[in-house]
Amino acid sequence: MTEKLNIVPFVSVDNMMKLVLAIGVERFLVDLAAYVEEDFRRWQSFDKTPRVASHSRDGVIELMPTSDGQLYGFKYVNGHPKNTRDGRQTVTAFGVLADVGNGYPMLLTEMTLLTALRTAATSAVAARYLAPDNAQCMAIIGNGAQAEFQALAFKALLGVNKLRLFDIDQSASRKCARNLAGMGFDITICSSAHEVVEGAHIITTVTADKQYATILTDNMVGSGVHINAVGGDCPGKTELHKDILLRSQIFVEYTPQTRIEGEIQQLEANHPVVELWEVMTGKATGRSDSGQVTLFDSVGFAIEDFSALRYVRDQLEATGLYEELDLLADPDEPRDLFGMLLRAAIKPEALAQAL
Amino acid sequence: MTEKLNIVPFVSVDNMMKLVLAIGVERFLVDLAAYVEEDFRRWQSFDKTPRVASHSRDGVIELMPTSDGQLYGFKYVNGHPKNTRDGRQTVTAFGVLADVGNGYPMLLTEMTLLTALRTAATSAVAARYLAPDNAQCMAIIGNGAQAEFQALAFKALLGVNKLRLFDIDQSASRKCARNLAGMGFDITICSSAHEVVEGAHIITTVTADKQYATILTDNMVGSGVHINAVGGDCPGKTELHKDILLRSQIFVEYTPQTRIEGEIQQLEANHPVVELWEVMTGKATGRSDSGQVTLFDSVGFAIEDFSALRYVRDQLEATGLYEELDLLADPDEPRDLFGMLLRAAIKPEALAQAL
Repeated sequence: MTEKLNIVPFVSVDNMMKLVLAIGVERFLVDLAAYVEEDFRRWQSFDKTPRVASHSRDGVIELMPTSDGQLYGFKYVNGHPKNTRDGRQTVTAFGVLADVGNGYPMLLTEMTLLTALRTAATSAVAARYLAPDNAQCMAIIGNGAQAEFQALAFKALLGVNKLRLFDIDQSASRKCARNLAGMGFDITICSSAHEVVEGAHIITTVTADKQYATILTDNMVGSGVHINAVGGDCPGKTELHKDILLRSQIFVEYTPQTRIEGEIQQLEANHPVVELWEVMTGKATGRSDSGQVTLFDSVGFAIEDFSALRYVRDQLEATGLYEELDLLADPDEPRDLFGMLLRAAIKPEALAQAL
Repeated sequence: MTEKLNIVPFVSVDNMMKLVLAIGVERFLVDLAAYVEEDFRRWQSFDKTPRVASHSRDGVIELMPTSDGQLYGFKYVNGHPKNTRDGRQTVTAFGVLADVGNGYPMLLTEMTLLTALRTAATSAVAARYLAPDNAQCMAIIGNGAQAEFQALAFKALLGVNKLRLFDIDQSASRKCARNLAGMGFDITICSSAHEVVEGAHIITTVTADKQYATILTDNMVGSGVHINAVGGDCPGKTELHKDILLRSQIFVEYTPQTRIEGEIQQLEANHPVVELWEVMTGKATGRSDSGQVTLFDSVGFAIEDFSALRYVRDQLEATGLYEELDLLADPDEPRDLFGMLLRAAIKPEALAQAL
């Protein structure tokens, strides 16, 4: 790693893909899940705040900062469901890890891919505490950009090997099945939400519409099922019928944020929920019996991004999969910012290029 | 400009210096001031929120977002006064401009230099409304990284041509005088704060200590002076004695933020202040008579960064002074993020490099 003070290591999309492929998708998910779990277990050492959201007609732009007192991380992420119409991603993201001691950024990285990976890793970590024992069959409702990552995370961390896929656009299900071919899954494409949940021990909902939708109704959810609700993640955007919530034990990441953005925005503000870190540290119980319906009302929290940033930072030195970005002004004498500018003017190549 | 959806234009420190030199520092400040003033005049069209600050023992890391409904901008900025001890900048920054319609970043740029420029441009814009007529002599207390930019902004926008410099470290004053030599100033280095204010029409305070300090006491400020207080910009950090505030007409950027961070944190929460945009739009009066002491209690607000991001964005096409950053995942089919990863694996060069 460089000691040049102007340089911040940058992981481009291309390098992130190389990094994931070099490590292997499943191992990446398992290792990342360990970082997420480690950070959830020291939950109380973090500065926590609901994300800072800027809502507009077609979507939202959010900043998600957190800090453990040593490191500071934040993610920029948008959510624009209509983007796919003109070939753009619904969600894109990038993030920064910085040193709290001097405030200098230590890493800038793409986080579109990384968010998909950390979301799936977090879902699987939660399911290890909440899903029924030996859950092997997972239904995935919504087979867009997040679906394959969820499937592989649940395979790698829980041993899920049967997938049931449903999407209102069946070409998405076929895309998902094609991408996962030969990876050890028995895959069934279904033609309705009612059909897809048959025999599933885990139901993952991960649709993208920015509106109240009822992807799952109460009669579709049998006893003992774990629901991994990923797609309801902003005000006005939910996926589950309220009756399901009322008979589930609900687990969340960070209650103040989930009350605003999660499925539980449909419930009273004092409806009991359990934070996932409490289960991980033994402060609260996860699944209490085999007939219980458990629900992980996941909206994504800054600490998960923090974990992902830490994980990527820890891979840089060994892999070299980053570029050096000239992001920070570094005058010879710290107070002489203007002098740095003056001296740049007398470099012949700077002048030649500038004029 | 590129239409490649994965690419975000990036302005490095090196390209920012080339851009400033190509345009010329004074013209850059004048043009940037026009963007700041344009945005202050449409103040009510912006989403405004106090910055999101993460305080630690040695400093602060802040995110400063804002949006006008069409564009969204944010700045990452730290403030760590002790940084200069190990050769780092007290303040470093970078920023992003994004399209509200699709949430995609349009520009990533260094903002350490750009913040110094926008802070000076904003100070000078304010002084055009608040300083006494024909103010030619400015005292600058604190001759660190911001000093020369302030001097040149006041020269370019107000015609200031006499500078009086004071810093507790006289080598900083000498550095400042040396950098500004030959630029049309009559410069006097002073050995005390009492001496430096003699004959000054404008007093600029721009020190960096993160603590309550009294750089100016009441008896030092004569009638008719304009005080441009730049250095008091976080909780617990002020520069002026309270008595000066009590006899000044106080102007601020965004009241809720300045109450927390500015000089007026020393006053009651209902002490009357005027927002600068109100003066610019004729809603409020600026300087009302030649004997009045006016005070611009500047802490820096997100809209100034937004203006700076807009200005830099508008220079890219003509100058080409940017790089292309592979920041956003752009699968051939938007929902096929995982497929993009799979296809990267079968590119021979990706495999060769990854293994």
